[in-house]
Amino acid sequence: MKQPGTLTAWVNDRFTPLGEARVHIEDRGFQFADGIYEVIACFGGTFIDLDEHLARLWRSCEAIALEPAVSREKLRDLIRETYRRNPFPDAMLYVQITRGVAPRSHHIPENIRPTLVITARQLSQVPEEKIRRGATAITLADIRWKRCDIKSIALLASVLGKQEADRMHADEAFWLDEDGHLLEGCSTNCFAVIDESLVTHPLDHRVLGGITRDLAIRLARRYGLPVHERPWRLDEQGLSELFMTSTTNAAMPVCRVDGHVIGNGRPGRISMQIRTLLLQHFDELRAGKRS
Amino acid sequence: MKQPGTLTAWVNDRFTPLGEARVHIEDRGFQFADGIYEVIACFGGTFIDLDEHLARLWRSCEAIALEPAVSREKLRDLIRETYRRNPFPDAMLYVQITRGVAPRSHHIPENIRPTLVITARQLSQVPEEKIRRGATAITLADIRWKRCDIKSIALLASVLGKQEADRMHADEAFWLDEDGHLLEGCSTNCFAVIDESLVTHPLDHRVLGGITRDLAIRLARRYGLPVHERPWRLDEQGLSELFMTSTTNAAMPVCRVDGHVIGNGRPGRISMQIRTLLLQHFDELRAGKRS
Repeated sequence: MKQPGTLTAWVNDRFTPLGEARVHIEDRGFQFADGIYEVIACFGGTFIDLDEHLARLWRSCEAIALEPAVSREKLRDLIRETYRRNPFPDAMLYVQITRGVAPRSHHIPENIRPTLVITARQLSQVPEEKIRRGATAITLADIRWKRCDIKSIALLASVLGKQEADRMHADEAFWLDEDGHLLEGCSTNCFAVIDESLVTHPLDHRVLGGITRDLAIRLARRYGLPVHERPWRLDEQGLSELFMTSTTNAAMPVCRVDGHVIGNGRPGRISMQIRTLLLQHFDELRAGKRS
Repeated sequence: MKQPGTLTAWVNDRFTPLGEARVHIEDRGFQFADGIYEVIACFGGTFIDLDEHLARLWRSCEAIALEPAVSREKLRDLIRETYRRNPFPDAMLYVQITRGVAPRSHHIPENIRPTLVITARQLSQVPEEKIRRGATAITLADIRWKRCDIKSIALLASVLGKQEADRMHADEAFWLDEDGHLLEGCSTNCFAVIDESLVTHPLDHRVLGGITRDLAIRLARRYGLPVHERPWRLDEQGLSELFMTSTTNAAMPVCRVDGHVIGNGRPGRISMQIRTLLLQHFDELRAGKRS
């Protein structure tokens, strides 16, 4: 397997060793968080929902009026080529587009050329032990901006959330709105199982439309599980399970929140079923059974 | 006067030509907006409120639990040396500290070394014409995060605000809270003159504690003008003037908001008095009359 020293990144118009991959200090991504990104999983050479990630990337660009410097087809080719040069069995492709380089000013100059960065890194498997025991989380009052539907690099609030989770020896921090509704995690969407149905916050400006969130909903419904997209609280009657979804972790059961046990304290049956459905789906993609 | 091609920037541990000044693509400033900054004016070699800017920089660092890699004294020396190498008569010093470089993960690794960037650029004089006619602004519902008291580089919301102001041919966008109170601009604090008193939003998590805001308040009080730090609205009875403050523009009268004329549509007497007090204060600093 390739080691980090030999990793290759795409920066603007060429591949370069990751260790030497740099952007200008006046890149607006560095000075203003003026950019967007995607993280895409690739298992055994099979990209998971690449087209969906690209579609969301274009929606994010549109939301901040950033015209990508490449076509969607060209970007797809570059992502594939980045993987070919960093062929981890389980890989995580990272794509970032920023507004570009200009003398620092909030105002966006005309004719600025966007910066494009693509990297590939090994995607670590979640330890089986972690899945058997379930993850832990804390809750925090949502301090993020009101356009969390845009997958932007303005992630400092989420970094602070994870920092607080780390401090509390938890795996994730969930954001609560002013009425105590659980919105999502710092890098995950969150589902509850309430009366044998899946419940997750509806898509609005406070929640990212997660690709794995969407896939989990579709697979659950195909499997016959009702799914309700509505605001929900942790103290609802009938809440028996929690899990969180992300590109890098599929579905991960959550067994403790703020020190309180969820359900019986073990990964829930339905949560694990969703995890199994997701992993089966990835296996089928890998085996070429689905496109 | 030096031209941009010859500008010099400090990056981490050395001076380098600005054109070649780069950071790694996995700098957390570039991928997570995990950093903070300051902009400091320097007129004729005299820094304006350098100690206040450094104190705020340290408060910002503390707020995100980032330990700067340099002492305050060392940073002061580096800022002065950056100016010495880019000696514009009117200069704008930019200091940015980010968490540092690490493989991308929301979690902050231990022993990460912060990135320090310092640049100096020419500070453009505000055209006299602009001051005579006054600036224009729009208002927008505040979509920013709830820690605007931290001077962080997670500035995308403010970039989008300025983008909207540009689209409306205005100079600034002011953020309104859910009750229509005017908080501040994308890169300015904002004052109203109401019944011959200055009024500006009190310092809380939705407002940056501007160095020029603070100075304007102190100079106004010394001059005998009452100053009230309280929430206020544009439609308040007795509101006759508006102005905005920033390090780069001192105090700038605002004569139109959302197309509506403020007062008599010309820069207000008290606004211009505050501007004069600020410029006199800078002149006195330059002449060595005050420290």
